[in-house]
Amino acid sequence: MSSCLCNPFQSIFSSNSKYSEVSESSESKMTQKNPSFVLQAPRSVIYEDRPIPKLKSPYDVIVKPRWTGICGSDVHYWVEGRIGHFVVESPMVLGHESAGVISTVGDKVQSLKVGDRVAMEPGVPCRRCVRCKEGKYNLCADMAFAATPPFDGTLARYYSLPEDYCYKLPDDMSLEEGALIEPTSVAVHITRQASVKPGDSVVVFGAGPVGLLCCAVAKAYGATKVVTVDINEERLQFALKYAATAAFRSRKESPDESAKRLIQECDLGPGADVIIDASGAEVCIQTAIHALRMGGTYVQGGMGKPDINFPIMAMCTKELNVKGSFRYGSGDYQTAVDMVSTGRVSVKELITDKVKFDEAENAFRDVKAGKGIKILIEGPTE
Amino acid sequence: MSSCLCNPFQSIFSSNSKYSEVSESSESKMTQKNPSFVLQAPRSVIYEDRPIPKLKSPYDVIVKPRWTGICGSDVHYWVEGRIGHFVVESPMVLGHESAGVISTVGDKVQSLKVGDRVAMEPGVPCRRCVRCKEGKYNLCADMAFAATPPFDGTLARYYSLPEDYCYKLPDDMSLEEGALIEPTSVAVHITRQASVKPGDSVVVFGAGPVGLLCCAVAKAYGATKVVTVDINEERLQFALKYAATAAFRSRKESPDESAKRLIQECDLGPGADVIIDASGAEVCIQTAIHALRMGGTYVQGGMGKPDINFPIMAMCTKELNVKGSFRYGSGDYQTAVDMVSTGRVSVKELITDKVKFDEAENAFRDVKAGKGIKILIEGPTE
Amino acid sequence: MSSCLCNPFQSIFSSNSKYSEVSESSESKMTQKNPSFVLQAPRSVIYEDRPIPKLKSPYDVIVKPRWTGICGSDVHYWVEGRIGHFVVESPMVLGHESAGVISTVGDKVQSLKVGDRVAMEPGVPCRRCVRCKEGKYNLCADMAFAATPPFDGTLARYYSLPEDYCYKLPDDMSLEEGALIEPTSVAVHITRQASVKPGDSVVVFGAGPVGLLCCAVAKAYGATKVVTVDINEERLQFALKYAATAAFRSRKESPDESAKRLIQECDLGPGADVIIDASGAEVCIQTAIHALRMGGTYVQGGMGKPDINFPIMAMCTKELNVKGSFRYGSGDYQTAVDMVSTGRVSVKELITDKVKFDEAENAFRDVKAGKGIKILIEGPTE
Amino acid sequence: MSSCLCNPFQSIFSSNSKYSEVSESSESKMTQKNPSFVLQAPRSVIYEDRPIPKLKSPYDVIVKPRWTGICGSDVHYWVEGRIGHFVVESPMVLGHESAGVISTVGDKVQSLKVGDRVAMEPGVPCRRCVRCKEGKYNLCADMAFAATPPFDGTLARYYSLPEDYCYKLPDDMSLEEGALIEPTSVAVHITRQASVKPGDSVVVFGAGPVGLLCCAVAKAYGATKVVTVDINEERLQFALKYAATAAFRSRKESPDESAKRLIQECDLGPGADVIIDASGAEVCIQTAIHALRMGGTYVQGGMGKPDINFPIMAMCTKELNVKGSFRYGSGDYQTAVDMVSTGRVSVKELITDKVKFDEAENAFRDVKAGKGIKILIEGPTE
Repeated sequence: MSSCLCNPFQSIFSSNSKYSEVSESSESKMTQKNPSFVLQAPRSVIYEDRPIPKLKSPYDVIVKPRWTGICGSDVHYWVEGRIGHFVVESPMVLGHESAGVISTVGDKVQSLKVGDRVAMEPGVPCRRCVRCKEGKYNLCADMAFAATPPFDGTLARYYSLPEDYCYKLPDDMSLEEGALIEPTSVAVHITRQASVKPGDSVVVFGAGPVGLLCCAVAKAYGATKVVTVDINEERLQFALKYAATAAFRSRKESPDESAKRLIQECDLGPGADVIIDASGAEVCIQTAIHALRMGGTYVQGGMGKPDINFPIMAMCTKELNVKGSFRYGSGDYQTAVDMVSTGRVSVKELITDKVKFDEAENAFRDVKAGKGIKILIEGPTE
Repeated sequence: MSSCLCNPFQSIFSSNSKYSEVSESSESKMTQKNPSFVLQAPRSVIYEDRPIPKLKSPYDVIVKPRWTGICGSDVHYWVEGRIGHFVVESPMVLGHESAGVISTVGDKVQSLKVGDRVAMEPGVPCRRCVRCKEGKYNLCADMAFAATPPFDGTLARYYSLPEDYCYKLPDDMSLEEGALIEPTSVAVHITRQASVKPGDSVVVFGAGPVGLLCCAVAKAYGATKVVTVDINEERLQFALKYAATAAFRSRKESPDESAKRLIQECDLGPGADVIIDASGAEVCIQTAIHALRMGGTYVQGGMGKPDINFPIMAMCTKELNVKGSFRYGSGDYQTAVDMVSTGRVSVKELITDKVKFDEAENAFRDVKAGKGIKILIEGPTE
Repeated sequence: MSSCLCNPFQSIFSSNSKYSEVSESSESKMTQKNPSFVLQAPRSVIYEDRPIPKLKSPYDVIVKPRWTGICGSDVHYWVEGRIGHFVVESPMVLGHESAGVISTVGDKVQSLKVGDRVAMEPGVPCRRCVRCKEGKYNLCADMAFAATPPFDGTLARYYSLPEDYCYKLPDDMSLEEGALIEPTSVAVHITRQASVKPGDSVVVFGAGPVGLLCCAVAKAYGATKVVTVDINEERLQFALKYAATAAFRSRKESPDESAKRLIQECDLGPGADVIIDASGAEVCIQTAIHALRMGGTYVQGGMGKPDINFPIMAMCTKELNVKGSFRYGSGDYQTAVDMVSTGRVSVKELITDKVKFDEAENAFRDVKAGKGIKILIEGPTE
Repeated sequence: MSSCLCNPFQSIFSSNSKYSEVSESSESKMTQKNPSFVLQAPRSVIYEDRPIPKLKSPYDVIVKPRWTGICGSDVHYWVEGRIGHFVVESPMVLGHESAGVISTVGDKVQSLKVGDRVAMEPGVPCRRCVRCKEGKYNLCADMAFAATPPFDGTLARYYSLPEDYCYKLPDDMSLEEGALIEPTSVAVHITRQASVKPGDSVVVFGAGPVGLLCCAVAKAYGATKVVTVDINEERLQFALKYAATAAFRSRKESPDESAKRLIQECDLGPGADVIIDASGAEVCIQTAIHALRMGGTYVQGGMGKPDINFPIMAMCTKELNVKGSFRYGSGDYQTAVDMVSTGRVSVKELITDKVKFDEAENAFRDVKAGKGIKILIEGPTE
């Protein structure tokens, strides 16, 4: 199976009578097909021609995704076929970090027209539950989220979304940057959960894509000190060039010692105002709690072990605010677009590789191997 | 030593030349003395005549404590001589839950006069640090807190406080009730940290004094459902009579199972809006995290093991607000007085025993043994 | 025209060929008709048989309104045919304060079934705009609000609503009380805008239905002092019996003098924490600003002149929070149901009269004349 | 009297026996004197040698002010001898926007030493009242504020402050910039009152010093659109170069028309998210209310007529947040120092003139005449 995935597109098409027509089809027909990158089972992906989605509501649009980034959760589904209680039980199109071009608009769509370039927010909530109506739609229990079972993702020629989950890109923002709006929105949401405000000292554990973006967004929110923490010197150096004002290399020591060293080396006074974990590592979380000042704020952004050893009494007596951060919600996508378009957050330098749609699995392989920062998949082109 | 403590007052005086004068002193002299209940070493307490405190500032008053409650932390110092990094290194007067009568007022005191009955807030902050100036004085690093080393407590004839840390009791509130303002303020602070609002469902783990008061205060904040959780059936029954609207008896089962049963039995829908832990028990904390709804709030009110196994990913993906609660701060004491004086929170039924000043150690012994809910020490009387 | 309204139903039917069938119809047919109380022009109302509404979405239900209250805005449309830029340009069914019984449910409705008794929230927003998605749906520019042009109201046999805008009444709450949930929600929203918290002193200008409910709701939110202000002694006495803890009768004097007298007579210390205006009167608004403490909060709940003379510099240098309050939003209806069902807010005594559906116009006439507090219209019955 | 003010220092000294000694004094004596710029009566100022202030507390320091800016309120006292109910009843030293050098430190001062360069926060609150303890010390009723009667200001050789009201300047910040921290803090407080957040559109009425700084600070808080509004084209051009992203010239038209034109010309969609008034002009305030979006925020920063005609119903039905802003409070000064030192806000270009201490009255005259943006007074030098 893996061999066909190394040379996927044609071989799949040739081995599948459903697709044999395709190779013969004229270009005009081509544009009506919907080639899709589908996870069938753990580590088993194929290209299928899925039905072109229809507008479910007059407020919907059809988008042609142009660029799609890959993140850890995509890879997790690819490798394991599940994340927690989300289990891929039937074939599912992958991908959820996309930007594309509007190809169809519903009758009641007012703000978009065919040809508009948009960042695509991949999760659409029910709009009816208490959480939706109180302004926290990311906590909706009936969220339909791209590439989260049982919902198909965006690695296809066509993808349907409500108008209000598409964010028009300013003229000077590229579609590649548009694809990075998704992880930028993750960082915006984390930073808002953290209530970062001008003058704050912010420590970010983990210098992967989300950690880096958290550094940049925290700075855009006015953080004066932004400390990046990682075990990898190369990543720290990148983070320093990219957005951090200081770097701290973690090493084998107790969380308490590590916290003291962090505070001292990075001149954090009585402790950091805000710490964001974008690593998911137990030792980072523990260190973070010890490195916060009285009344400081901790946000869990990274995914890791479900249960960890946690300094609950330090949390209690320092009266910390400990918060989860889950995806992105009201206003986050627009804020991310604004930040990138005004140059407050730069995302171009995070794109370390691009592959064609028919090499999509390579992107998954590279992300799994930890190559580069952010890999984009192009297309499918017509 | 322990023998003298069984028969404390006179024997100490007679065995101590420093005190021999005392026994001969006239009554008028008596009133100038300052008998104090002093912890010398773990489990070793004596009565000493400490110097009568002087006004350190024209804004200070001297109070004669009339009733003093005993809580777990008092007993902890008595037994262990320390709590965490707070170590009793020199003899320290015990007691911090007091109400009393003003005996002296400084030149600039405007709101109080000699004879006024007041609840005494036992922790005075520096008033100058960033935390104090931002309205979170309970997080002041230079807090002088009664009966927390090295600061003496209130179990003495005289105790000095700034005017603004004394809260005048309304005419219809007794001094015994006044002594209960301290634990009520703890509950007010926890409830405010929890942002309890009308219509909320609130679960409180632990039906000791603070847990009970959290039930009552949460209800006064408008909580519609208030579930008390404990392993002790008798305590649950008391809590139900006192303030809770439902009771849940925890038993040996996994936190996840316990959470499901709690939600189901108490009809908590998608989970509780707010959970307060007033137990400090690891299994309670774990159950609580699992029993909260998406976006719910957890407050750690109880003290327990410094580190516990914590469901961090459930916290993260449910985007919970997890908060510590430390003592009480701006407005809490006044709110507690208001709640008791308007009858929204009743504290009388929590007073299960009263002892005289010269039997103070008995109170500590009883609290340690888990007898009753709240024991008050009277005096010293003149 | 008024004659037909005095004896409306049959006469209208007999004079209208469209209705002649009706009078002959069997009872089962009767239940399929939709008699509606329609405003045709200022002061001109008739009963029409409107088409029975259909479910527009599988999440919708059809409700049969049982009781409908009348408020000032209903009367305003009746008298003037407009409120501000909302102009009744084609005949419009009146009524928006209703509770009723579910008669039809859509395929995807889960929480309601035929026969359920519900309070009906009369404004349904677009669910798609920025305001909706940030949790402030009452500010939605595309709100469809009952009896606000061009949307029909609830004074009809059938009314269609989304499931999530119907609030099931607890068994012990009557449908009459259910109709009062609407003004109670107005008061809940005002009180939330005012951030009333336990211990606050709250002054409410105006002792009409909304003002009275603001007193009761503010108290349920924990306000210790609730001062009702009016020019009418009878109303003040009712307010005192109903919910207020103090009453202040306004008289001819400058706003500044009135504020001083209010603070002094009602013992408001440095000024009130919160003031709510439910009068719309210029002099009340001016007095309120002067009677607030430094940093206090003012909420405009009552409607009046579009522009008034306003003490802007007092507002500025006292750093007040001045807020509008518009209808009700996320959570308000449910909170109102909770408050009434738990007895924190009582609405029964506000119902001073009830009339039949075919006497609806009398209710409008009485409200206009200032008779009673709240008049309910029953039906239409079948 | 006015003549001596045209040629102040020496002439005053020579015409005043009290000062004749001074002119003879040796240089070492000179350093012990405290020449002060004193307002005696409206438009009547002299230089007096006031007693050198002593440390009132071991937490105090003595600062030598080096640069002092002049603002509208200083000029107002100079011209009128009063602002509202603050009346200059006895001679008062002027000046409150200062930065200086520490010359003496109290025994308990820890963060500062002699020679440190500091921005001086000129208002010291009581630290004991409810407002102080809840974190809003700028609302303290017992504030001692420099150059607000009866408290002397900073235009003197020595000025006493508590350590925590002095903010150390980073090495790369000049003392001239330090003097601008005061108006920057005003702008920080206004912007915080306005809750400006990344992506917001912010309109600032008035392009004087505070308006300009509000533009810059709002941008530093992440505002994407910052519209400056003024009647003066030159000021608008400066504002555009300085910090604004768009400019709007107000002209004779109704507030409603002006608001529509503002929204349209500056592409503000459904209205501005935030509007700050730094003009105090009635028409600006009215226009602002009409130009805000549903749920938007208005902050009154500028001083003007005490009462104005205000569109209260627009405020109500749009559910606006209208707030005052008074001076600066917890954290504002430090945030201002951070913003200037990190280059987010630049203050140098606002300094349009500098005068010597003995020409101080010229500065007042120039500010009154509207010359330049910010004039600094140097000294007194030794």
